Amino acid sequence: MSLKQKDLVSLAPLSADEILRILDTADSFKEVSGRDIKKVPALRGKTVVNLFFEPSTRTRTSFELAAKRLSADVINFSPSSSSVVKGETLLDTARNIEAMQADIIVLRHPSAGAAERLASGVKSSVINAGDGWHEHPTQALLDLYTMRERKLDFKGLKVAVVGDITHSRVARSNIHALIKLGAEVRVVGPPTMIPLGIERLGPTVYYRFDEALQDVHVVMMLRLQLERQGRGLFPTIREYSRLYGLTAERLKLAAPDVVVMHPGPINRGVEIASDVADSLSSVILDQVSNGVAVRMAILYLLSGGE
Amino acid sequence: MSLKQKDLVSLAPLSADEILRILDTADSFKEVSGRDIKKVPALRGKTVVNLFFEPSTRTRTSFELAAKRLSADVINFSPSSSSVVKGETLLDTARNIEAMQADIIVLRHPSAGAAERLASGVKSSVINAGDGWHEHPTQALLDLYTMRERKLDFKGLKVAVVGDITHSRVARSNIHALIKLGAEVRVVGPPTMIPLGIERLGPTVYYRFDEALQDVHVVMMLRLQLERQGRGLFPTIREYSRLYGLTAERLKLAAPDVVVMHPGPINRGVEIASDVADSLSSVILDQVSNGVAVRMAILYLLSGGE
Amino acid sequence: MSLKQKDLVSLAPLSADEILRILDTADSFKEVSGRDIKKVPALRGKTVVNLFFEPSTRTRTSFELAAKRLSADVINFSPSSSSVVKGETLLDTARNIEAMQADIIVLRHPSAGAAERLASGVKSSVINAGDGWHEHPTQALLDLYTMRERKLDFKGLKVAVVGDITHSRVARSNIHALIKLGAEVRVVGPPTMIPLGIERLGPTVYYRFDEALQDVHVVMMLRLQLERQGRGLFPTIREYSRLYGLTAERLKLAAPDVVVMHPGPINRGVEIASDVADSLSSVILDQVSNGVAVRMAILYLLSGGE
Repeated sequence: MSLKQKDLVSLAPLSADEILRILDTADSFKEVSGRDIKKVPALRGKTVVNLFFEPSTRTRTSFELAAKRLSADVINFSPSSSSVVKGETLLDTARNIEAMQADIIVLRHPSAGAAERLASGVKSSVINAGDGWHEHPTQALLDLYTMRERKLDFKGLKVAVVGDITHSRVARSNIHALIKLGAEVRVVGPPTMIPLGIERLGPTVYYRFDEALQDVHVVMMLRLQLERQGRGLFPTIREYSRLYGLTAERLKLAAPDVVVMHPGPINRGVEIASDVADSLSSVILDQVSNGVAVRMAILYLLSGGE
Repeated sequence: MSLKQKDLVSLAPLSADEILRILDTADSFKEVSGRDIKKVPALRGKTVVNLFFEPSTRTRTSFELAAKRLSADVINFSPSSSSVVKGETLLDTARNIEAMQADIIVLRHPSAGAAERLASGVKSSVINAGDGWHEHPTQALLDLYTMRERKLDFKGLKVAVVGDITHSRVARSNIHALIKLGAEVRVVGPPTMIPLGIERLGPTVYYRFDEALQDVHVVMMLRLQLERQGRGLFPTIREYSRLYGLTAERLKLAAPDVVVMHPGPINRGVEIASDVADSLSSVILDQVSNGVAVRMAILYLLSGGE
Repeated sequence: MSLKQKDLVSLAPLSADEILRILDTADSFKEVSGRDIKKVPALRGKTVVNLFFEPSTRTRTSFELAAKRLSADVINFSPSSSSVVKGETLLDTARNIEAMQADIIVLRHPSAGAAERLASGVKSSVINAGDGWHEHPTQALLDLYTMRERKLDFKGLKVAVVGDITHSRVARSNIHALIKLGAEVRVVGPPTMIPLGIERLGPTVYYRFDEALQDVHVVMMLRLQLERQGRGLFPTIREYSRLYGLTAERLKLAAPDVVVMHPGPINRGVEIASDVADSLSSVILDQVSNGVAVRMAILYLLSGGE
């Protein structure tokens, strides 16, 4: 299969079939990524530019590894210290990169909608690596890949997404995809962290963690952005942790083979207890591994691979 | 042809013939750079080090891409945060890089003359990627390449270089090369931005933009360094823009097929109006594309390529 | 030979034989590194991650070049600006890198013992590129390589290590290795910079430089960390320089063919006079060259090479 689109900006427009076929493609790259010689020549002579307006060593590294294992040339372009200071617009920066014959631009940007704007302004393919609170489609795809790897069936799958839903692009991309694939999504968090009207996207809203956990097959914890908390607002980190932190005790409320996910980096003892993060239920490091394979698949498909 | 010199520090010592032969070499790399597989093995096993003492994501990226498309290994070495803080001299830093068997050092440095000093102190080839207000030879070469691509004949070509001539290494390198190739160069700007005695290098000085624009074939706008302005000095940004900003209206004073150039990043609405930057007369993005090809040519020729 | 260990954290547990065999392996890579085409495919398809929690452009570059010349894919991961700010632990960061299938992690960290902790927590190989005041084994290995290249015989070799011994991981790694190889090591510096009980590791302590220099074959100067001095403490930089700076005059006290070493970056006129640093006795730049070859050898051996 080849993705019939130039860009990957959002999971909203993708069909269930298209999503599943990306996961199928990732399967073959997962194998490569685990081998002793991890390189395939699929993107030899292609140029991938990581255009990161926010620091994110992990996501950037995951894309960089994915591109290198496909034998592409990779450029890390972090304009914070340079052109942006000089007042250049996003589109001018990107057109410059395009003019240097970049085949794929991987964009991380603080503003929701930046990836969409970029995609419509350049001929290069654009992959959204997180745009403000909007979407982070490759993270959701690697989450789905990891669920499927654990033999979970999306139809009827009960998934609780826990934390600051309002400010989470990870949550938003996962909700789009999971609903589309037939899962039942529950969002859980303090009222101040659940956006009004989120139900319209499909999920059910819970404010009590214990209630939301009943019989779920997957608990997807979100990172508490400590830098956002602690300014005298409710909840404090301690309260948050008591009400929405995932402990081994609490996890017993979920289905027997429940899978625990987290996009990382984790705050041990805040949103997730250390023993839970390191338990057999946890697939947090599998998510990281699968991230490389899923990104290889996306780079490959957007380059016209079949 | 092979460049008979070890380094590219300045365009001043090059003959018209040598300059034209660099452009000819770039022609073949331009073709490679536009292909689906952009790589050639010409510099396989060679090491290119980008030694940047000033941040410049674009120039660094252009060199990095050029080197990678020639299959060289590229190292980005930005000593600002490291050895320089530790008090090491430029020459000691460079000798260390040389000791690691770097074949080519690409130097960006805030002091005029730094590239010259470096070139005479190390056996590696040195490419000046901008040294203070002195020179930026690869920028001038890509400008020339872009003019020639637009079928302009250097003999008798009328070129207006507009802006802060005093602080522009781009202007200085272009003046050297254009005069040598038989062009007529006009420098235009407020008196505070035109260095005394610049006429000795060949150009004619203008203070009124409209006058300088009469019949010119090329308008080369320089970036207004906003960070330098606005300290209560004349002209203010607004005045500068009114007197020396390139508008569609003003452009009509030039020759019919006038070509508009800018080394980027552009300040839309300051030195150049948005509609002019995006017009068919503008070759600003061609300059960026050609930059990679020209730098490939230089890396290739300095490595002994023919 | 293949190193029978997963990691290189310290030179303390290595036998004299193992050390010498690393140097032998480096010999063949030294040859490669000096060639026109410096690349060998030994680590093709392997991933090396430079995980640097302290900035060190030189050491990072040396490892990056070594890995690239072995055809490995290299990722520079500097978490200071990212995950660390976000509160992630070293081990969580490293496990993420491991999950992305890194074969070798090169770690620079401000805390003594960090490399050891990391090595026991991940399956990837770990190379200690400096952990606090503890060890910097690859630096010591390249120092040994450089001595051997100068035809020095370790048995009975008199080596003076001069400067801030307390805060020097370079000194510590060298002492371990040199003693093991049968050398006589003298440590020299002001009493405030010599750790109590250092004699137990094997060296003799001197406080007077002139005395320590008598008949030594190698003078290994340490960098005075200027940022640590000058807070009203004894000695001041000027006093330090007078008492422990290496001058041509002073060097005459050593053996006739004495070799002068320094791990760089040097403070000219502080711990070492300029003419000494640039003299024929100085092997400072050879150390840098040999660093790449020695690191190639270590990367190769830890990857199972023979």
